[in-house]
Amino acid sequence: MRIGELSRATGVAVPTIKYYVREGLLPAGRLTSPNQASYDEGHVRRLRLIRGLMDVGGLSVSVVREVLAAVDSPGESVHKVLGAAQLAITPPPTATPDGMEEARGKVVALIRRRGWRVELENPAVEALAVALATFQGIGRGEFEEIVDDYADACERVAAADLDWVGRNAEVDGMVETVVVGTVLGDAVLMAMRRLAHVEASARKYEQGPGQG
Amino acid sequence: MRIGELSRATGVAVPTIKYYVREGLLPAGRLTSPNQASYDEGHVRRLRLIRGLMDVGGLSVSVVREVLAAVDSPGESVHKVLGAAQLAITPPPTATPDGMEEARGKVVALIRRRGWRVELENPAVEALAVALATFQGIGRGEFEEIVDDYADACERVAAADLDWVGRNAEVDGMVETVVVGTVLGDAVLMAMRRLAHVEASARKYEQGPGQG
Repeated sequence: MRIGELSRATGVAVPTIKYYVREGLLPAGRLTSPNQASYDEGHVRRLRLIRGLMDVGGLSVSVVREVLAAVDSPGESVHKVLGAAQLAITPPPTATPDGMEEARGKVVALIRRRGWRVELENPAVEALAVALATFQGIGRGEFEEIVDDYADACERVAAADLDWVGRNAEVDGMVETVVVGTVLGDAVLMAMRRLAHVEASARKYEQGPGQG
Repeated sequence: MRIGELSRATGVAVPTIKYYVREGLLPAGRLTSPNQASYDEGHVRRLRLIRGLMDVGGLSVSVVREVLAAVDSPGESVHKVLGAAQLAITPPPTATPDGMEEARGKVVALIRRRGWRVELENPAVEALAVALATFQGIGRGEFEEIVDDYADACERVAAADLDWVGRNAEVDGMVETVVVGTVLGDAVLMAMRRLAHVEASARKYEQGPGQG
């Protein structure tokens, strides 16, 4: 298909498509004449992936570029590929609130307690420490009393995610599945948590089931 | 304390503090002379809250302003206050991928199936539909097979969150607790989910416990 058809199929404007090609996010079309290129279903899917990562996942052009580089270069073992994809979509946190040393200690204790085999250089370790230090800094340090409830929930979600990745198990598509599942899954989790909050609040503070 | 001390106590630069006062995020100090103001512990906590919402939660100045307006004006019932705070921190999604009608139907079915008493105008309903439609658009529609695992996890987290809010139960501080817990809790959940992914991947694809 021509670039105009690609634009109509995906809802992405032609200049934006050209921008993504220049930025290395989208492969160039196949040249059919000196100034005309042809695009296929692979371009349609890739464009939808780019827009999903940006619009739903809130990723920037440069982060999407890194993520897609991971998608396009599968490594050796599945576990390593998953790790590389995860690293690309987890930029190290920029904030460094007071109390980071203590917060890091709490994260390490949590990881040991749960028996999670993660390297302490994982940027999610630092991201978690930043969040806990921030709770502490604004006088809400007792949040740590419920971190194991969060960990239970995350283990449940992670097991479901990995089963889902396993069912999409051509190794080629697996990295894309991990990236999509991680980024869009975050959005699902945040939206659903808010809905579950409404129900939990109704149950706790309103008349009771059926009257909310 | 003077503005310089407030800056040292919080790590926020003096011009930034003045900017937050001008933008209505931080109450002005108490004037002690025509060109000198005095700040107290309330300002320290509020500044840390602002930075936490921005740096950890990724909220913009204008969203933080709305959120703080909700924090500063408690309403009638606890359930309503929680709802208002939640609305302020959940901007409606900007993306509208193809397949939104079908995706909305799936979200409504999920809400009915779980028995959640939420209004369908809740922006999280639309956010969830956008995420599901995006999965569908990139050929990963089978993600819906695990939405109930996500819902189980979210119910667990929401119950823990509401207990935590209940333990911080002076009504004045409750809205702040909800806002902080929702925004920072998202960050905790995302970071922990990544750590749990590493463990789940090690368990599934590596040699077995103790050898990863």
